Amino acid sequence: MNSYGHLFKITLYGESHQDAIGAVLDGLPAGTKIDEELIKSDLEKRKPKQIGTTTRKEDDKVRITSGVFNGYATGSPIHIMIENRNVISKDYQHLKTHPRPGHADFVSQVKYKGFQDYRGGGRFSGRLTAALVAAGSIAKMAIPFKIKHELVQVGSLKDMSRLDEYLLEVIEKGESVGGIIKITVSDMIVGMGEPFFNKLDSELAQLLFSVPAVKGVEFGLGFSGVEYFGSQFNDVLLDNKGITKTNHAGGMTGGISNGNDLTINVFVKPTSSIKKKQDTLNLETNKVEPLEINGRHDAAIVRRVGIVLENMVAIGLLNQYLMYKTYQ
Amino acid sequence: MNSYGHLFKITLYGESHQDAIGAVLDGLPAGTKIDEELIKSDLEKRKPKQIGTTTRKEDDKVRITSGVFNGYATGSPIHIMIENRNVISKDYQHLKTHPRPGHADFVSQVKYKGFQDYRGGGRFSGRLTAALVAAGSIAKMAIPFKIKHELVQVGSLKDMSRLDEYLLEVIEKGESVGGIIKITVSDMIVGMGEPFFNKLDSELAQLLFSVPAVKGVEFGLGFSGVEYFGSQFNDVLLDNKGITKTNHAGGMTGGISNGNDLTINVFVKPTSSIKKKQDTLNLETNKVEPLEINGRHDAAIVRRVGIVLENMVAIGLLNQYLMYKTYQ
Amino acid sequence: MNSYGHLFKITLYGESHQDAIGAVLDGLPAGTKIDEELIKSDLEKRKPKQIGTTTRKEDDKVRITSGVFNGYATGSPIHIMIENRNVISKDYQHLKTHPRPGHADFVSQVKYKGFQDYRGGGRFSGRLTAALVAAGSIAKMAIPFKIKHELVQVGSLKDMSRLDEYLLEVIEKGESVGGIIKITVSDMIVGMGEPFFNKLDSELAQLLFSVPAVKGVEFGLGFSGVEYFGSQFNDVLLDNKGITKTNHAGGMTGGISNGNDLTINVFVKPTSSIKKKQDTLNLETNKVEPLEINGRHDAAIVRRVGIVLENMVAIGLLNQYLMYKTYQ
Amino acid sequence: MNSYGHLFKITLYGESHQDAIGAVLDGLPAGTKIDEELIKSDLEKRKPKQIGTTTRKEDDKVRITSGVFNGYATGSPIHIMIENRNVISKDYQHLKTHPRPGHADFVSQVKYKGFQDYRGGGRFSGRLTAALVAAGSIAKMAIPFKIKHELVQVGSLKDMSRLDEYLLEVIEKGESVGGIIKITVSDMIVGMGEPFFNKLDSELAQLLFSVPAVKGVEFGLGFSGVEYFGSQFNDVLLDNKGITKTNHAGGMTGGISNGNDLTINVFVKPTSSIKKKQDTLNLETNKVEPLEINGRHDAAIVRRVGIVLENMVAIGLLNQYLMYKTYQ
Repeated sequence: MNSYGHLFKITLYGESHQDAIGAVLDGLPAGTKIDEELIKSDLEKRKPKQIGTTTRKEDDKVRITSGVFNGYATGSPIHIMIENRNVISKDYQHLKTHPRPGHADFVSQVKYKGFQDYRGGGRFSGRLTAALVAAGSIAKMAIPFKIKHELVQVGSLKDMSRLDEYLLEVIEKGESVGGIIKITVSDMIVGMGEPFFNKLDSELAQLLFSVPAVKGVEFGLGFSGVEYFGSQFNDVLLDNKGITKTNHAGGMTGGISNGNDLTINVFVKPTSSIKKKQDTLNLETNKVEPLEINGRHDAAIVRRVGIVLENMVAIGLLNQYLMYKTYQ
Repeated sequence: MNSYGHLFKITLYGESHQDAIGAVLDGLPAGTKIDEELIKSDLEKRKPKQIGTTTRKEDDKVRITSGVFNGYATGSPIHIMIENRNVISKDYQHLKTHPRPGHADFVSQVKYKGFQDYRGGGRFSGRLTAALVAAGSIAKMAIPFKIKHELVQVGSLKDMSRLDEYLLEVIEKGESVGGIIKITVSDMIVGMGEPFFNKLDSELAQLLFSVPAVKGVEFGLGFSGVEYFGSQFNDVLLDNKGITKTNHAGGMTGGISNGNDLTINVFVKPTSSIKKKQDTLNLETNKVEPLEINGRHDAAIVRRVGIVLENMVAIGLLNQYLMYKTYQ
Repeated sequence: MNSYGHLFKITLYGESHQDAIGAVLDGLPAGTKIDEELIKSDLEKRKPKQIGTTTRKEDDKVRITSGVFNGYATGSPIHIMIENRNVISKDYQHLKTHPRPGHADFVSQVKYKGFQDYRGGGRFSGRLTAALVAAGSIAKMAIPFKIKHELVQVGSLKDMSRLDEYLLEVIEKGESVGGIIKITVSDMIVGMGEPFFNKLDSELAQLLFSVPAVKGVEFGLGFSGVEYFGSQFNDVLLDNKGITKTNHAGGMTGGISNGNDLTINVFVKPTSSIKKKQDTLNLETNKVEPLEINGRHDAAIVRRVGIVLENMVAIGLLNQYLMYKTYQ
Repeated sequence: MNSYGHLFKITLYGESHQDAIGAVLDGLPAGTKIDEELIKSDLEKRKPKQIGTTTRKEDDKVRITSGVFNGYATGSPIHIMIENRNVISKDYQHLKTHPRPGHADFVSQVKYKGFQDYRGGGRFSGRLTAALVAAGSIAKMAIPFKIKHELVQVGSLKDMSRLDEYLLEVIEKGESVGGIIKITVSDMIVGMGEPFFNKLDSELAQLLFSVPAVKGVEFGLGFSGVEYFGSQFNDVLLDNKGITKTNHAGGMTGGISNGNDLTINVFVKPTSSIKKKQDTLNLETNKVEPLEINGRHDAAIVRRVGIVLENMVAIGLLNQYLMYKTYQ
């Protein structure tokens, strides 16, 4: 179940501490110009550099082994691979007996019967999102839409101009915080989205919830629209390109793009790994005891997740765009 | 794209004013006992009876034409069909030139190039959810989990004991309201959910956003968790069945069920059709002009949608449960 | 697993003796003109009328309940249904203890643990092919290719002008025979087929082997090409439309249509039900004993299967054609 | 469309002259023991060593970058990669203007609009089958069945003891030959195969026709069964394990395994590349002219294809076996 898509398909592989992570991208139209600089600059946005992100340095060099020839997509699957180089060998056995709160350690131990590669979170590591970012960059090369993201809230902070200051306080406490990211897609067209189960919002939500730590997705006004009356919520059509007076529906009606910007809010929960001691169950003794998680953490992973979400949207849009084109 | 599922598959067909709506359900284990009473009682919950729901009476008699023999599933696809009987013939041509705000009239006209069956909203009608409810009832017969739903907010009202009173005011104004529905799944097991793209939350979100009018989905604390620090958000494991001290993650870690109840909040937007006059574009003259939507509306469709969402969750859970069983 | 297709999808339901058989067709382009006469005339070709076919009269009235409006496809799923009317009630319990040789009685008893609807062969009945024929007729309405089929061999007979005479002899013996059907698709284009696993030949073979009684599929020269040297087998390209001097490859190179006619041979095994007594295992006593199958049999079902195969090819071609169009 | 499977999924990438070929294998049960020696010994069977195979030496070293930990499958996708090392750089531009008879040069030029990587046959190269072999070896590690293959005919030769001698004559003529390979699967169980479209024979045929050069597939007696009467063809059940007196149906009834050995014949056409001069169209001048294909050819690729077919069957069987297990 590591594949997504009907026409543009991504198959994702890799674990945190094995040789490599990567993805196979299938269905990119032959002749799509491959812009390696875009891949690099998107990956750069995911790298930890700002306050509140880990001090660990990762080398995210993308190798394209297949499907690109003379700078253009050949129509064959594109294989992108990122070798895992900066892996710190240490004894991760502890994770098998002391599952970290908020992490998938316990569920993966049960689900995979102890055969999972638990080192560094294994397949549940945020590390895999590097391959997603690269995949999304490639998807962007074949769609005419523009996607951007912005942080709208981090922890209890809504004024993003004070972010560094706020995060220093969070770090001081040995804590972490989550946040809300807003994604906007412009230059949209009318008619993308495939009822009943592959509506545009359904597919984007599926993709966004696949990203580790995402716990909420809403379109347009989202949950805050509960306070509106129908006459206030409804977007009034103004022209035959689909432009409406307001955009409370977030650019989709009946799950189909209506020509207005797509607007999506995504809630990313606080990073699970924190410096502060927490309790957990010792699976050997069946007793709850304190756990200290050492290492280099992201106090606000939300600062790095934006580009992952943006590029997941790109992946979904390309799949839907090809579907749309089929019937034009 | 009217199918969902890998092992338990649903294929949905039908439009509001054609002969029938229905679904084909594939992958129900042979030998599953079919409880027709459950289908009836679930459909009963979707029927408009309360204040704030339409006065239109629908006959939702489900006919099972295939796949059930002597009261048990045969292992072949089950076909359920509901004939459309209470269809009021009137001139719906108006919808092609005067798209109703908030409805899919405009996007479907563009997407399907005018060939769509626009009568009564066609394939975008809430009518189709009757078939979904019946399908979900059948899914429930093959899963060991319990699912329930409750209204937690309607419009600005959070005290559900005052709901009828509140909705009378809304109706008085010729308005409609949306709401928030909470779904809870109990008796869960550890290990359901298939990374990377078919995590349990990803699939449930895909299904929930397929339901007309859904504009937000969150698990556990959801968006309100943005105010929490990591140490507050993390759920502490208490025993080796997966039970945690809190359930802020809504029963899923890393997209995999962790043994706690699944908790999901869904935002349903205000019904688009309202009594009050609204503006829209006249597609013939390209001028914005007032539109009056006659007919019998649901001022609070959210009162009827709960069972639809509940049963969509059942559909998703059965698909995931079969996947889970494959590897046990 | 009762669905096929990526863009044009068919989901098939039904058993021989339940209320109805039918199919949901998804992905037919909105605006496709629906020609109900073609459905009728194709179904007519499947009806038993000639020598060597059953004397049982079936009513194959197709009801389209959804997805067609004013004579055109709406873009929503099309649901076609054929009610089972001429069902003879008799005691089929015998089949559960005395599996008929060549039939799926034994395997379905094991696979579905006794819950299968065994009456009249249940889901393994040739009855289901009526729905396939109707589905294929609809597929034909959206493709620019011409498909035809012809009998090239029946039993040991290759001279089709003597067919009636030959079959009378077969019937006289209480026997049945199989045959070879050749399907030809003309007006082809270059470029249909999706490597690696959805090559045109791969998909057509998958579909053709789905039809009951098919035991062999070959393209172009097929198995007889084993006697050729490379220089004899290779088709020499003559013009830039893809036309070759010979067509030994059956119109596909590397699994992609090359502009020449598709030519396919399909082997249909002798009908399993025969008048002659045969041995089988009595599952109650575990002893082999003679079995007499009463009823009205097709001594040469191959006379009726041609249109089924032809229309399966149509289904596959439409799916592939839409895929092809996506990238044009 | 480079993926196959529902529960066990393979996604194949690579072209002949790019950096690497490989595959992502998804759905292998966690805990499956990985036997790297089996991969090596299967790949060894594909290597050109015998008379009638190319003198080109390939290094097929398989690198597993993900999904295996301490010698066992983790439950995450397994990524296998084979680097392309022995690539001879020469001017392949000729292929774009002078399509080789029997090759996919012309169709891929049209389909991919000239963007395909034409070097060495690109994605249509037999080179990709090395990754398939390795994938199939891994599939074998999770199924309880035994699969073998044997050559039954090469060119006009049926007595395999004279094969080397015969092929020397073929090489002398500058020719190539095809052949027929028989695959046998033993230790089968009753009940594998998913009607309607994923019957066991349907899926195996889809996979086998995906292999380059395959032009015919038949089960059991196959086409030769056309000479049989029903009473001769039908296999008589002898015991409640499904064993029949004969096995004319090739181990499947109604597309479901019946407990007897699966027997499959596959026709592999003569290698397209031959030493002898052939005609082709010059796409620049639109004139037919002689073409000489230099390089090191396989006069009888059929000697190397057997293990590819065998391992494709393993891939299909694992997918079906997991499906079977879901419902046990």
